[in-house]
Amino acid sequence: MKKYSEMSRGELLAEKEALEGRFREICSKRFKLDMSRGKPSIAQLDLSNEMMDVLNSDSYFLDETGTDCRNYGILNGIPEAKRLMGAMSEVDPDDMIIYGNSSLNIMFDAVSHAYTHGICGCTPWGKQENVKFLCPVPGYDRHFRITEYFGIEMINIPMSETGPDMDLVEKYVNGDPSVKGIWCVPKYSNPQGYTYSEETVRRFAALTPAAEDFRIFWDNAYSIHHLYDEPEMQDFLLEILAECRAAGHPDIVYKFISTSKVSFPGSGLAALAASRRNLQDIEHHLTVQTIGHDKLNQLRHVRFFGNMANMHTHMSRHAEILRPKFELVTGTLRAELGELGIASWTEPRGGYFISLDTLDGCARKVVAKSAEAGVKLTPAGAAFPYGKDPRDRNIRIAPSYPTLPELTKAVEVLILSVKLVSIDLYLEGGQ
Amino acid sequence: MKKYSEMSRGELLAEKEALEGRFREICSKRFKLDMSRGKPSIAQLDLSNEMMDVLNSDSYFLDETGTDCRNYGILNGIPEAKRLMGAMSEVDPDDMIIYGNSSLNIMFDAVSHAYTHGICGCTPWGKQENVKFLCPVPGYDRHFRITEYFGIEMINIPMSETGPDMDLVEKYVNGDPSVKGIWCVPKYSNPQGYTYSEETVRRFAALTPAAEDFRIFWDNAYSIHHLYDEPEMQDFLLEILAECRAAGHPDIVYKFISTSKVSFPGSGLAALAASRRNLQDIEHHLTVQTIGHDKLNQLRHVRFFGNMANMHTHMSRHAEILRPKFELVTGTLRAELGELGIASWTEPRGGYFISLDTLDGCARKVVAKSAEAGVKLTPAGAAFPYGKDPRDRNIRIAPSYPTLPELTKAVEVLILSVKLVSIDLYLEGGQ
Repeated sequence: MKKYSEMSRGELLAEKEALEGRFREICSKRFKLDMSRGKPSIAQLDLSNEMMDVLNSDSYFLDETGTDCRNYGILNGIPEAKRLMGAMSEVDPDDMIIYGNSSLNIMFDAVSHAYTHGICGCTPWGKQENVKFLCPVPGYDRHFRITEYFGIEMINIPMSETGPDMDLVEKYVNGDPSVKGIWCVPKYSNPQGYTYSEETVRRFAALTPAAEDFRIFWDNAYSIHHLYDEPEMQDFLLEILAECRAAGHPDIVYKFISTSKVSFPGSGLAALAASRRNLQDIEHHLTVQTIGHDKLNQLRHVRFFGNMANMHTHMSRHAEILRPKFELVTGTLRAELGELGIASWTEPRGGYFISLDTLDGCARKVVAKSAEAGVKLTPAGAAFPYGKDPRDRNIRIAPSYPTLPELTKAVEVLILSVKLVSIDLYLEGGQ
Repeated sequence: MKKYSEMSRGELLAEKEALEGRFREICSKRFKLDMSRGKPSIAQLDLSNEMMDVLNSDSYFLDETGTDCRNYGILNGIPEAKRLMGAMSEVDPDDMIIYGNSSLNIMFDAVSHAYTHGICGCTPWGKQENVKFLCPVPGYDRHFRITEYFGIEMINIPMSETGPDMDLVEKYVNGDPSVKGIWCVPKYSNPQGYTYSEETVRRFAALTPAAEDFRIFWDNAYSIHHLYDEPEMQDFLLEILAECRAAGHPDIVYKFISTSKVSFPGSGLAALAASRRNLQDIEHHLTVQTIGHDKLNQLRHVRFFGNMANMHTHMSRHAEILRPKFELVTGTLRAELGELGIASWTEPRGGYFISLDTLDGCARKVVAKSAEAGVKLTPAGAAFPYGKDPRDRNIRIAPSYPTLPELTKAVEVLILSVKLVSIDLYLEGGQ
């Protein structure tokens, strides 16, 4: 197949007519599919159903130190949950706080506390003149909404396969005291599925921030979320807390994890790992905010998974369900768009998303076009601060929720939309 | 028995010697009991154990609208949970948001959001000159810690059996635009067990606050927590939302409830009820903060309780366990201190606490004395803003957690301590 850019006007018009015929045919079937969020599928949820059996009315509800998990008490998590989540996050259990079901909520609260009370005794962000965050783009929309909500200025940092542009990150963080944080999804990043290289992580750990209250917001959401069992097919991420400690900057990072995509998205465990100094600072807030989180759910997770080896086995079952979906998407994109010169995309080995770049100025139109045929994608621009993709080209594909037959149809709609919008661009003389 | 104030020095010394002998005897037994918090007892927790059976791996995990409770989604609660909690709170289910396990966390977040973003478009509290809260005293220490944490000035308002001094409340709220809130535990109040009278509730609803962003923080923590089944032995509280609406001030109240002392203290449901305008304002925050709360736990509560009648029956089982404990405390206080003129106390018909007033200047000493004999009480002063009881006389008794034999010993220790500290006061020529 020829590149679209090399086609004559006549060839483009012929191609357009054929594609439009097929597109109308699909529209007539009134297909409906919401692919806007990274939701696990029903088959994946079923993998954890037996977690509902591990506690029953005859259970022993005490944690290993004898605390009754049904009652009040224990602000930072029962010891066995800290061990399990510590293993998942590759940190010392004493370097963690276990929260409720939402790591997003922990991040929001961390920003909120910094805004109202300041980090470790520093002036609250709400009382500082300028507060800025670095935002590797494309990135996770819900991160950006938190900083936008608090009126924090967001600065785009380009992403590559090895992570954010570290020259820029160093320039901003080490040079500008109003830069207070950076949002990172360091492994199987949202939406590209990139994993930060060892060099990138070491450069993060070696940062010498101009602001004492600068923190890396390290959202390790997909730490064990591989698509392949073979070790050589799995991405590896250096553990950031240890690197920061080794570099003499133990306090510059907050690390977030959750089991939202391990057990249940609505009813998992979320946790924060950080230096003792940071944890003390945060517990000082937390003790005013709540008496404690749901310890029965902590117990349920610990008794269901038992240990990290079982959790890895469990993740391998998730991968069995997810892998064919990712391969369907990337395989079809390769077959259908590979030679046309109108799109590029990532081929992740883990995580929940595929990032697709169209020709500049086409993403919004592609998303709108797909919606006409009943396929709801993440809004174009969502992966950028303020919802603004400067090149209007990025589309986040979330293949996890649909079944394979649904996904087959959805990908066809997406590809038809990309082709049709691109042809129109060429016909109008763009690119 | 004579009043201590009428005893001669000789009589007081003789009494003291006898009491000290008994006190030393108890100390020698190295009894240990923590009565500092209002924790349900193990027997009470056991009442809800079967809630652990209602969801298992074969369950149907959809809510009544077909939403899978295991997955992401639904910010403000599944409809059946809103109905159940609405019934518990006597409000329209549409006037509620269901949260996670902690109503304290909802209150903290409500204050935090008001501080960072302002209520319904008003200037954020953090950017206003003076922000004040009214604090009926004695009251709930954790309420006061929230406002203290945000640097909000707290003003003591005396409590009586009918509720806070409403003349003062009206003067402050209607006259001072820097007064932004009042902490209320309107039913079976913490620590007195008082219930606001109908007149008090109507006067609350009729408030015409000088500040547009004034809100009543109505913590209805003990709404269905009666000690007696007989209706004539139960306190009645007017429903505040309806009263405020009727008075033309639908927006002046946030109402909080939870099942912490219905199901499990660590794993219950908490909820906020308020006007639609307030709920919209809060959902605007909430949607940035989290994707949603634990819907499986909502489903668990709904399937366990089924309806409000069952929840009342359940509460009656709690009462069976709690009632003898309250009666043991009040009965012993009456028998031992009734004629001595050195203490007064409340005799609640519900809730979790009994409030004891010693002679002025004695509370700290009594708490310290009890600790010597192994009985840990709530710190004296805790029920007042900044931990300062101006008369140093109030002690909160939490009879729920100990077994009856433990409680018998603890009350003996408390009474001995009150007597010994009071005798010392008279011997030193005080009062």
